[in-house]
Amino acid sequence: MTILTRPILEINLANLLENYKMLEKLADKSTPAAVVKDDAYGLNAEIVAKTLYEKANCRNFFTAHAVEAEKIAPNLKNARIFVLQGIGEDSLEIFKKNHQIIPVISSPEMFAFWKDNKIEGVKPVIHVETGLNRLGFRRKELEKLTETDKAEFGMVMSHLACADEKDHFMNEHQLRNFNEIRETFFPKLPASLSASDGVFLGHDFQQNLVRLGAAMYGINTAPYRENQMKNVVRIMAPVLQIEDLPKGDFVGYSATYRANTNRKIAIISIGYGDGIPRSLSNVGKVFFKNCASLSEARIIGRISMDNIICDVTGIENLKVGDMAFLSDDFYTLDDMGRDAGTISYEIMSRVGKNTRYIRRYID
Amino acid sequence: MTILTRPILEINLANLLENYKMLEKLADKSTPAAVVKDDAYGLNAEIVAKTLYEKANCRNFFTAHAVEAEKIAPNLKNARIFVLQGIGEDSLEIFKKNHQIIPVISSPEMFAFWKDNKIEGVKPVIHVETGLNRLGFRRKELEKLTETDKAEFGMVMSHLACADEKDHFMNEHQLRNFNEIRETFFPKLPASLSASDGVFLGHDFQQNLVRLGAAMYGINTAPYRENQMKNVVRIMAPVLQIEDLPKGDFVGYSATYRANTNRKIAIISIGYGDGIPRSLSNVGKVFFKNCASLSEARIIGRISMDNIICDVTGIENLKVGDMAFLSDDFYTLDDMGRDAGTISYEIMSRVGKNTRYIRRYID
Repeated sequence: MTILTRPILEINLANLLENYKMLEKLADKSTPAAVVKDDAYGLNAEIVAKTLYEKANCRNFFTAHAVEAEKIAPNLKNARIFVLQGIGEDSLEIFKKNHQIIPVISSPEMFAFWKDNKIEGVKPVIHVETGLNRLGFRRKELEKLTETDKAEFGMVMSHLACADEKDHFMNEHQLRNFNEIRETFFPKLPASLSASDGVFLGHDFQQNLVRLGAAMYGINTAPYRENQMKNVVRIMAPVLQIEDLPKGDFVGYSATYRANTNRKIAIISIGYGDGIPRSLSNVGKVFFKNCASLSEARIIGRISMDNIICDVTGIENLKVGDMAFLSDDFYTLDDMGRDAGTISYEIMSRVGKNTRYIRRYID
Repeated sequence: MTILTRPILEINLANLLENYKMLEKLADKSTPAAVVKDDAYGLNAEIVAKTLYEKANCRNFFTAHAVEAEKIAPNLKNARIFVLQGIGEDSLEIFKKNHQIIPVISSPEMFAFWKDNKIEGVKPVIHVETGLNRLGFRRKELEKLTETDKAEFGMVMSHLACADEKDHFMNEHQLRNFNEIRETFFPKLPASLSASDGVFLGHDFQQNLVRLGAAMYGINTAPYRENQMKNVVRIMAPVLQIEDLPKGDFVGYSATYRANTNRKIAIISIGYGDGIPRSLSNVGKVFFKNCASLSEARIIGRISMDNIICDVTGIENLKVGDMAFLSDDFYTLDDMGRDAGTISYEIMSRVGKNTRYIRRYID
């Protein structure tokens, strides 16, 4: 018997690379860019960006914040790193120091700041609003730009609201808006409209540059059909203890589960402190592998910070030290997100930032 | 006008110290220990433990994992650091190297591992089960321990399931179980039963050592009355953009919000990538300070990874670069947890692990 205490996080870089190349091929008329914001959805932006740079020749990257760009830049010689949240007093120095790092400017106020603090040799991206009603210049603001203003920019971009629903009216609506704005205000600029979900909507949506994020990390951004992407994340944690749970006994904080028959339970060394959503309490499941067969065990009681309790009644040959699978090819983070009432993006972003995992990168 | 892009996380160490001292006083017959697992609920275990060691003379600490203990040990000379998830092959070397670090042993299997790998001079804690049905020796397993086995241990502990509900039957039930087990099997050992919620249940529950966690971090662990603890966490993020939202327009991913009248919106530079729960979409709120007055703005549309959109209709004098308050004394993480359908513990643990914040520790 092996006694183990730590959860394990495996990140499959080979699958991530395959996903990137598949998307690149799908958008073969566009320049591919990798979205590595939020520390590459928690998977470690330095490692992910370096891998894409070296093994897939990726030369365009997107982060949300300049501090994120600064961290990955040393490994990405001559690549461009676009910063979606733009530029301000709290990030200006980073842009001044490294001209690879390019701000995306999304409002007249930020543009005024840019003009006061222009950096020679850097051409920012202009973000225009087409229907998401998030960041971006509105039409009336674009109309106020002078020709000199417009000449400041090196690219025009927008972002789709509903690209994960193939036939949503918003897709065509935003595409029309974008093309119209582009032709009216920036006819000569390269354009970017789509993240990975938009790539699946076809060439019109792909424009000149596509921003490959979620799907590259294995997330199904086209949930109207089976996922075409390879799974990137595996989460495991050891069984710390196996016990009988007598009929009538309660389990976990606030005694939210009660055994109505005699059950057998396993205590797993992972919890919401490791990024597993607490909303999986009494709802989620974990899996055990025994030779070729896979057993499913329901999570019972509240998930706590460091432990999950599951019902292993009827699962044979289970012993302390065995690994429970929280997420894998057969139960992806998309599945977990659905069970938890959220999306895989949020779970991935959380899980990856936890330092208690034994972390393995698979090439 | 100031243009800013990064969210800010303030951790008030002065308030954390006051909370610790208040709890210490409440449990004046017990030894206080600080729970700094999960990187001190995400607030940085090295800083929190060092502060408590130097300024409150704290000499007992709890982590979940040995890797967490190893990280804080260098600043905590001669203090004891107890490891709740115990000892196994994946942590043995850490315990061997540093005898300050003491495993909590919770199952016969782990105890067998301990006996095979005993460390001279280290007396582990035995965790006994009293009603939570999580980790811990069950009664039938305790009965199998020999006198020599029992002499291995230096402390006996258990954990309460419902201590945040003052009159829950489980509290007395667990206390009775614990005292009975203690007297039967470990009459001479010091005992620990309560975390901070149990401290509020009185001296019987406090036993010889109390494990001060959640309440020290400002969480209300006695939600049946007003919080007595000082708030420790403040989260702010700058307004990136303010725009009109015309009647009929949609907001955010999947167009889950539609304006039924003309509205004004602000886009805030923080999202679920920074640990704000996505379940606050269309439900949560943010606040703006204008001189002495406080305005409340509802979050509308889906929260995205890097941005939150809120309805600022009717809020006067708001401008780009102003700070939105996501959590503060007037809207604590307990409040946010209630709005998000979870608990403050989970949010704190997430928020604190994000590296995009400008992070300030207030002494």
